[in-house]
Amino acid sequence: MDRLRFAPIPDGLPATVPFTGPETLERRRGAPFTARLGANENGFGPTPLAVEAMARAAAEAWKYGDPDSHALRSALAAYHGVASGHIMLGEGIDGLLGLLVRLVVAPGETVVTSDGAYPTFNYHVAGFGGRLVKVPYRADAEDPDALLVAARDHGARLVYLANPDNPMGSWHPGARIEAMLADLPQGALLVLDEAYAEFAPAEAIPRIDPADDRVIRFRTFSKAYGMAGARIGYATGPEPLIAGFDRIRNHFGINRIAQAGALAALADRDGLERVCRAVAAARARLEAIARDNGLRALSSATNFVAIDCGGDGALARRVLDALADLGIFARMPGVAPMDRCIRVSCAPDPELDAFAQALPRALAQARQG
Amino acid sequence: MDRLRFAPIPDGLPATVPFTGPETLERRRGAPFTARLGANENGFGPTPLAVEAMARAAAEAWKYGDPDSHALRSALAAYHGVASGHIMLGEGIDGLLGLLVRLVVAPGETVVTSDGAYPTFNYHVAGFGGRLVKVPYRADAEDPDALLVAARDHGARLVYLANPDNPMGSWHPGARIEAMLADLPQGALLVLDEAYAEFAPAEAIPRIDPADDRVIRFRTFSKAYGMAGARIGYATGPEPLIAGFDRIRNHFGINRIAQAGALAALADRDGLERVCRAVAAARARLEAIARDNGLRALSSATNFVAIDCGGDGALARRVLDALADLGIFARMPGVAPMDRCIRVSCAPDPELDAFAQALPRALAQARQG
Repeated sequence: MDRLRFAPIPDGLPATVPFTGPETLERRRGAPFTARLGANENGFGPTPLAVEAMARAAAEAWKYGDPDSHALRSALAAYHGVASGHIMLGEGIDGLLGLLVRLVVAPGETVVTSDGAYPTFNYHVAGFGGRLVKVPYRADAEDPDALLVAARDHGARLVYLANPDNPMGSWHPGARIEAMLADLPQGALLVLDEAYAEFAPAEAIPRIDPADDRVIRFRTFSKAYGMAGARIGYATGPEPLIAGFDRIRNHFGINRIAQAGALAALADRDGLERVCRAVAAARARLEAIARDNGLRALSSATNFVAIDCGGDGALARRVLDALADLGIFARMPGVAPMDRCIRVSCAPDPELDAFAQALPRALAQARQG
Repeated sequence: MDRLRFAPIPDGLPATVPFTGPETLERRRGAPFTARLGANENGFGPTPLAVEAMARAAAEAWKYGDPDSHALRSALAAYHGVASGHIMLGEGIDGLLGLLVRLVVAPGETVVTSDGAYPTFNYHVAGFGGRLVKVPYRADAEDPDALLVAARDHGARLVYLANPDNPMGSWHPGARIEAMLADLPQGALLVLDEAYAEFAPAEAIPRIDPADDRVIRFRTFSKAYGMAGARIGYATGPEPLIAGFDRIRNHFGINRIAQAGALAALADRDGLERVCRAVAAARARLEAIARDNGLRALSSATNFVAIDCGGDGALARRVLDALADLGIFARMPGVAPMDRCIRVSCAPDPELDAFAQALPRALAQARQG
């Protein structure tokens, strides 16, 4: 086994598979889910123009994707009103976060995030030997002040903040993020994950000069654009940092079909608006379903809703398990006190009908213990 | 700029973009290429069944891909007659090679390859701080004996061998690879890149127990299956090593459309055979075109042909540049004496017609210096 030994950092990582997909859960229960509401996916789907573009690109799949994503990068640059050099495409935010950690965090250096925030980011930090410092949420939101204090106390290289937040759906005004930058300690870079930005009110989006060397922002085609399975997202930030990705990224890694789909999706502003309206309606319906069951849905600026089950994490877990037995795939926050909630994705009416039907039974079952 | 400093390993990497795609060359020349013959792509394209599967999957692109790639992994396991635990899917061989290096090679440890072999592998080794030792090709082929000697002398962790080889198209009998394993020094793992295996004669494929802890093999849907732009490939190897990828890989990184396409492509054995026959015919035609121009094409077991331009690297470079001016995208090996050749992909007749027409003019121009 000597020749199969791992390098020290991966050797120290857990051997268990950290992420379980709904397909695995379906195989375990021996039947497909009726409603797939657990992964913050957007069941309203990509705009028909994007679907068409991807279907067309399938026949051209023998060609590698453009490693520069030139067409898409130019379109994004125009859309955001920045030069192309401020934009880096990648295999979803997940892929880009991994590259960022690898690029910036030396083994042993500190990264600050919130306890209960995006686990994939933590996975990358651990995966490259970084040291994670976590601060608690405050009133179901990530806490900018606590993040700044921890960043200062621990000499952090990166400070992660999702706005709007996953898993709670809460958000901070853009002005608060801007103020955070002013207080960011020297040597720390803000990782602003805006995966859900398109669903959020306009005032949630900070105004930041793309050349600002204190922050890198992440956006994705996985959420509002409904293309999670296509694997494409992007970072915007200062040019020297963006150029750094070229040192380590897998240059031909972004698939051609995703590039074509994203370009079409970005151009279809009506399509995006339509989806955002549908998501807002589904959010209202999820709130109503919660209310009908005597539960409170937390206000959300995303395409999912955290529903407070009114007990502890064990109760929410039982609700989730009972929902799964009834064919509903949902998830829940991993950390108290947020784990009193279940997290349910916005989706078309048939899926929400199924959820509305299953929830009272799941609650009754869960309350029996 | 303090907060934008890179971690030591990426900080030491070249800032220049290491890979240039044909789209970039097209933008520089201000016109598209007539024939795209430079990237070992398979212009015969994916089987229609795979195109259909990908087009269908486009509408489902709102769902993340199955992080286990369960259906595809099971189908590959059945196809290769091994248990699923011996197979790891990834974002092309490129992505998997990066993960392998990260998993196994600690900074400063040695990796052995051939001078002029696959540059993306070298890119990953440098990218994770490995030390590259290169041995020369021998008679336009990677040299197993020299690789073994270097592995022994330098205490290598990984030894890279592509069979068949890129960029020369040469191959070793499977028995030679098997013998190599017997002589592999303790502590070294053979990285057997079989990207072009489906084009090669049956006797090029070694018989290796999937549990053999001396080797990890790589296959792809990019070449014979014609799906380079879909980004999907796989590794087969001993279960403890394969399981190690789960510690560090981007679990939701393989796009859903690629998984659907690969599953359909794998099932269409007739489609694969048809493409391999078309590639063999194109190879023969490329050899004939070379002959017609007084040049020698090297015997190839891949979907590309190295054509000896009869001079040095500077001459071949001039041929390549002249071809590009005439709308033909080709590439060439980077290292002498292989760089006396240009490397041309097999393709449908219209592209080869264009190449046949351009080559005499390109040669005449190149010979004028």
